[in-house]
Amino acid sequence: MKDVFCKIIDGEIPSTKVYEDGDVIAILDISQVTRGHILVMPKAHTESILTCPAETLTKVMKIAQRIGQAEVAVLGAQGVNILTNAGEMAGQTVPHFHVHVIPRYAQKEGGFVLEMKQQDTNGLDLPRLARDIAKGI
Amino acid sequence: MKDVFCKIIDGEIPSTKVYEDGDVIAILDISQVTRGHILVMPKAHTESILTCPAETLTKVMKIAQRIGQAEVAVLGAQGVNILTNAGEMAGQTVPHFHVHVIPRYAQKEGGFVLEMKQQDTNGLDLPRLARDIAKGI
Repeated sequence: MKDVFCKIIDGEIPSTKVYEDGDVIAILDISQVTRGHILVMPKAHTESILTCPAETLTKVMKIAQRIGQAEVAVLGAQGVNILTNAGEMAGQTVPHFHVHVIPRYAQKEGGFVLEMKQQDTNGLDLPRLARDIAKGI
Repeated sequence: MKDVFCKIIDGEIPSTKVYEDGDVIAILDISQVTRGHILVMPKAHTESILTCPAETLTKVMKIAQRIGQAEVAVLGAQGVNILTNAGEMAGQTVPHFHVHVIPRYAQKEGGFVLEMKQQDTNGLDLPRLARDIAKGI
């Protein structure tokens, strides 16, 4: 069965587009966490950034970058968060790769909360952790 | 004055590297928000994704993708968040473009909190908002 983004791409579900080319589409997220919250995605179905061909990732990220720049220029955003969630455990809700571009404004908006708190690393062997990851790259 | 990532790149401050080539470096974030939290960045100084040359962005994102894949394969992560914050208003703390790769595990870790809550869009003219952004792309 098609996921909801494939249906949007195929025109079976309406959306508010901000950009489209042969490979990439960008739409207003129906659930605006801040004003101007955009989703950028490849038209060809792929589940997440982890499964996306590298050349497609490049196209998607270039458009995400340009949208972020536009939001600063046009909407008066003072910052932008650009992120993608891979896997339900990471908060991915639609299994079709998409990048969120979230403009941030001087007046706080409550929809987007990002906290990055340092965890206790006393039990971690950091050099070994780095070697383990490096082996997999 | 050099930012702290330029000092790390120049070897003036120690770091735990997981990847390095001529253009890109990836290190364990000294503030691990989950086990295996990595920062990927270009060696050439640029302030954020909004100022980064497109070809450099491509190189950085390809490595971020490969690290995310490695974390699933090697660390047993069940998901990954890949994000970059542009501007203090968006939570950027070091003014040198960097992408966070944050592995997520079945057992919740408290360091990374991401909430995306829909805001009231009754006052928003979504088609007009889309046109305004599209003009700036």
